Amino acid sequence: MSKPGGNGGVRTVAGATCVVTGGLGFIGANLVHALHRDGATVRVIDALVPTHGGNRRNLEGIDVDVLEARIGDPAVADVLAGADLIFNLAGQVSHTASMTDPLLDLDLNAVDHTRFLEMVRTVSPGARVVHASTRQVYGRVDRLPADELTAASPVDVNGVAKLAGEQMHMVYARAHGLAATSLRLSNVYGPRQRLTSDELGFLPVFVRRALLGETIRIFGDGRQERDCLHVDDVIGALLAATADRAVARVYNVGNRNGHPLSTIARLILEAAGNDRPVEFVPWPDDHQRIDIGSFKTDSSRIADELGWTSSIEIDAGIKQTIGFYQESSWYLSST
Amino acid sequence: MSKPGGNGGVRTVAGATCVVTGGLGFIGANLVHALHRDGATVRVIDALVPTHGGNRRNLEGIDVDVLEARIGDPAVADVLAGADLIFNLAGQVSHTASMTDPLLDLDLNAVDHTRFLEMVRTVSPGARVVHASTRQVYGRVDRLPADELTAASPVDVNGVAKLAGEQMHMVYARAHGLAATSLRLSNVYGPRQRLTSDELGFLPVFVRRALLGETIRIFGDGRQERDCLHVDDVIGALLAATADRAVARVYNVGNRNGHPLSTIARLILEAAGNDRPVEFVPWPDDHQRIDIGSFKTDSSRIADELGWTSSIEIDAGIKQTIGFYQESSWYLSST
Repeated sequence: MSKPGGNGGVRTVAGATCVVTGGLGFIGANLVHALHRDGATVRVIDALVPTHGGNRRNLEGIDVDVLEARIGDPAVADVLAGADLIFNLAGQVSHTASMTDPLLDLDLNAVDHTRFLEMVRTVSPGARVVHASTRQVYGRVDRLPADELTAASPVDVNGVAKLAGEQMHMVYARAHGLAATSLRLSNVYGPRQRLTSDELGFLPVFVRRALLGETIRIFGDGRQERDCLHVDDVIGALLAATADRAVARVYNVGNRNGHPLSTIARLILEAAGNDRPVEFVPWPDDHQRIDIGSFKTDSSRIADELGWTSSIEIDAGIKQTIGFYQESSWYLSST
Repeated sequence: MSKPGGNGGVRTVAGATCVVTGGLGFIGANLVHALHRDGATVRVIDALVPTHGGNRRNLEGIDVDVLEARIGDPAVADVLAGADLIFNLAGQVSHTASMTDPLLDLDLNAVDHTRFLEMVRTVSPGARVVHASTRQVYGRVDRLPADELTAASPVDVNGVAKLAGEQMHMVYARAHGLAATSLRLSNVYGPRQRLTSDELGFLPVFVRRALLGETIRIFGDGRQERDCLHVDDVIGALLAATADRAVARVYNVGNRNGHPLSTIARLILEAAGNDRPVEFVPWPDDHQRIDIGSFKTDSSRIADELGWTSSIEIDAGIKQTIGFYQESSWYLSST
């Protein structure tokens, strides 16, 4: 069982029963490995939606129970019973897919999460819940870096649906006393990411192309900045967010340092030993309409309140990441 | 057909084909009467959800086509074909009902609206769309009055779902070129409101009790302030929002002046000739958890950009409203 520790109530993982939704996916699988290593009993729920990032091989070699289901499925209630910590990471992340099938995105990122919260408050009302939201909820804002008091103005259906799912967690926290927190994650990279899709963000595309000896193509001039977060930093933030003070709070989770896309691409090519130059190509219309220009979040709230800051700089993080995929080359061909 | 006029592109109603969703409800029916009077052809879509505010008697005596359907119903596409102006007012407004059945609220206020927007962009992509959102999306904020740059932090499921529906309109405006605007309405009162439900806001409850010679009960000390907007002011804002400049914009629509609930109650009792004193009662738990304290929106954006301000003061508006219901007493018994 988890117990409040001395560190502002950050939950002890050893011996705790943890549920990870989206646990076969990128961030989820890294979290499951970390929780398992630290002595938790881990239960995974994952829908293995074919276009998403989940893959059973992400958890090869460790002993965890996996329920293959969407998080709104009534069978999820049995998995939630007795949980101490619930990390709710399931969701659709593709911006372009959300524009092609808006109703599916709303269903996966908002409706299913509401069903899930109803089950949590019925079955495990005392559990600590940490939800993964996204900086995408901000959309294109007037002032950067965007802090949590910035009005959200999403540019795509994915941003609207994720915002609804996130705010639903806050309503259940304030109105129903659920101990829920939501983290607005920036661009996350690292091991165990599905590399073969072009729909899961620019980072896995860059990594795949660099490793396959292909060129990296950037829309526009490459000067748009992004802050990239290594998945191990995200795991640190997810655990820090179990502190008592974080209940009913939303936090930005980004890297202190942002970089232009062209720099990020060059670092990835270099780490992979790929000496092709970066190609700059005109914006495709469907991407440009939902592009947000440069973006950077202000993560000082989580630093001030929970003591979390990013600790992995992009050059070191990318070298580690490329090394991981060179050892695990199935990521380059798995569909 | 509607044409851009000299007034910043505010659409001409005379001769235009207008669709009003929720057109049998409170604000919708008042709008339909106004559009019909001004020479528009009006088509109404209303689901007549029993617990909502719709009633066929609200449109007695005027000749409009009514489709009884939810706005996500495929049959709605036929009604949208050829529309010049679409006023999308359908939705669930009950905060407490949204907490009892969160999935229904999300379905009505967000999912159905997404289905609706998909139909609009397919069937009538050139139409002007004005959506009714609510100040409820703000929730409990740090700084009053709340302007449109204030981060939304809804306190109930209704606020989350309405925010999603509203932001979906903005995404369809920015990404798909739909000429959509959303208005965050404050507490609206006036003729044609369903008085017999306790779920549609405090104003119809106060009006009903005053007219039936009952006492008005207020939770707490009655010092919570609200700005109340006469429905005719809302109609003015909905028409002003058809201006070109309003496309892809969200606007607060509130009264310049707010008043404590106790003052509002006394004005209503006085207008109805009811001399019972206001009763102050302790907060019921389920209401207190989603109460927002005093609230006031800053409506200077719509004043500056579209030239709209509230014009009906609460004392005059309440006298007119009470007079309407004294003439149309079926509102006091209709269920």
